[in-house]
Amino acid sequence: MADFNPNLYSGNIIMSRIRLARNLSGYPFKIEDPNLAKDVVKKVYRALVKADTFNLFFVSNLSEMKLEAMKERHLISNNLMENALCGAALINQDESVSVMVNEEDHIREQCFMRGLSLNEAYNRIDKIDDALSNNLDIAFDTDLGYLTACPTNLGTGLRASVMMFLPALSTSGKINALIDEVASLGLTVRGLYGEGSAAEGYMYQISNEVTLGVSEQDILNTVEQTVVEICAAERDEMERVFVKNELKTMDRTRKSYGVLTNAVMLDYNEFLSHIANVKLGAMLGMININNLAAIDDLIIRTRPANLCEQYGKRLSAINRDLFRAEIVGKKLIKLKE
Amino acid sequence: MADFNPNLYSGNIIMSRIRLARNLSGYPFKIEDPNLAKDVVKKVYRALVKADTFNLFFVSNLSEMKLEAMKERHLISNNLMENALCGAALINQDESVSVMVNEEDHIREQCFMRGLSLNEAYNRIDKIDDALSNNLDIAFDTDLGYLTACPTNLGTGLRASVMMFLPALSTSGKINALIDEVASLGLTVRGLYGEGSAAEGYMYQISNEVTLGVSEQDILNTVEQTVVEICAAERDEMERVFVKNELKTMDRTRKSYGVLTNAVMLDYNEFLSHIANVKLGAMLGMININNLAAIDDLIIRTRPANLCEQYGKRLSAINRDLFRAEIVGKKLIKLKE
Repeated sequence: MADFNPNLYSGNIIMSRIRLARNLSGYPFKIEDPNLAKDVVKKVYRALVKADTFNLFFVSNLSEMKLEAMKERHLISNNLMENALCGAALINQDESVSVMVNEEDHIREQCFMRGLSLNEAYNRIDKIDDALSNNLDIAFDTDLGYLTACPTNLGTGLRASVMMFLPALSTSGKINALIDEVASLGLTVRGLYGEGSAAEGYMYQISNEVTLGVSEQDILNTVEQTVVEICAAERDEMERVFVKNELKTMDRTRKSYGVLTNAVMLDYNEFLSHIANVKLGAMLGMININNLAAIDDLIIRTRPANLCEQYGKRLSAINRDLFRAEIVGKKLIKLKE
Repeated sequence: MADFNPNLYSGNIIMSRIRLARNLSGYPFKIEDPNLAKDVVKKVYRALVKADTFNLFFVSNLSEMKLEAMKERHLISNNLMENALCGAALINQDESVSVMVNEEDHIREQCFMRGLSLNEAYNRIDKIDDALSNNLDIAFDTDLGYLTACPTNLGTGLRASVMMFLPALSTSGKINALIDEVASLGLTVRGLYGEGSAAEGYMYQISNEVTLGVSEQDILNTVEQTVVEICAAERDEMERVFVKNELKTMDRTRKSYGVLTNAVMLDYNEFLSHIANVKLGAMLGMININNLAAIDDLIIRTRPANLCEQYGKRLSAINRDLFRAEIVGKKLIKLKE
């Protein structure tokens, strides 16, 4: 296994995410009675306040824009949004922890951290989970482990994911062989917004498929080791694909910087393809930007609903593109100063 | 006819060119004896020194690069370049007058002036022509006028051309109807480098086809009037195609400015498509550049051979693209200051 130096890999590893699926005993998996559903929300909220300060959001109380913006920030899922009657989310101050209630399972605990931080994120969510299990009767079977609505989550109920930026493996097409290889380890590679979503801006999500018959620590180790290996492969491939074609890469990344800092309008896809180039240029020292995390944030904060949230009201597609160009241009010029 | 205001049209009218075709009596049209050809060159040179200061260039003494660079600046033709044995050109200091010797005709006098200046250019070349006819025996027939190698130049031997920048008529496709219309007036619309050359960067050359049975002044008037009308049509079309889509146009022109000022490499075609947008943006006040003539000059000075000439030696394609990007970026940043 390649040596792991988190500093070296910072550009390639965007974010780690831990998710635990839990259900309460004595309730059906799919609660259709709103009163029963609210009862679950109340119970979870009361248990959680002992672990951290959470804001409680009911899907039914939120605008479509706000929900979409939260989804863009990975705080809630499509599945939760669709449960307008009973869905709720408990989100802490810095949005690093989100607990969805009445999603596919009664409780879905999530923790997000920058870089490769699966163990830290797991430890954090474990404390949240302790607060829940100390105060609530969580459905657990000595053979099957945690019981979940879908059998694919049985056992640990744990999904450990890492969001990666893999421009070289994408460009060379080697990502495809890698996806097959990773599958044989019980892991999966997806686009940024989960199953079926496309890999946009060279971003991929690596996560475990298997949750049953393995320990939490095994899952974390397997995902982490795989991510480290993918990182090493990406670094080699970056050398081969981009560094060996230095002038072409520099040209491509700087032209993208030129487009983004001069654009009057930017639709999200155009922005994403250029910002991926700018990030690549920054990683390779071809564009003088050190704060790669700020680029990752910009990629989230310029998504349609997040953009409207920042503006303070819903914007037409054309006004979003205008506002996006304004934000992106200013930010990139500032980042390069 | 639309009122003509040369200031308004400065961006759309790049350059006026007058060409006169002349031959000496007592020599075959196509001289194949190098001694005879040199004799013609000497005679022309002696006659011309009375009118202006000329540098004499023999095709056989010039490098391919230098010849190509002169051709890019319209000073010499393909036809002259191919006559390595006998071809020569007499070019004045500011390159506004070029007299080719042993081209298709013995003598081809040319004068170039910025903007719509056909009469001024004609008056200038007329003085050069007087110096020739006062000192040499020019082939002339009372019925047919000036005798030329190709019958299409008989009579006046005059071609009056105007180089135009027609982004709106090109974009909307109305240029095609216009080309047909202009043909019915005995005029023709071509790409920038003459017959068969493509219209690059929205640039077109409008010139007379008919040289026989019309007076010089008629030719000048017809071309000028047509150019003025095309200008008016282009201005209307610019309003409709670009000004009415202000944001899209601004976006497109500024992105092109961003690409050109950040590029590491620029091949000529990529450069040309972006510089055409930048010029359009400058004309519409969307990019803060006032000196449109400097943009027109840049379009010539960054052609492959001119680039090598500036660099001082022949460059590989990749080095040309690097040097072009450097020159273009610096120039555009300076022009916007």
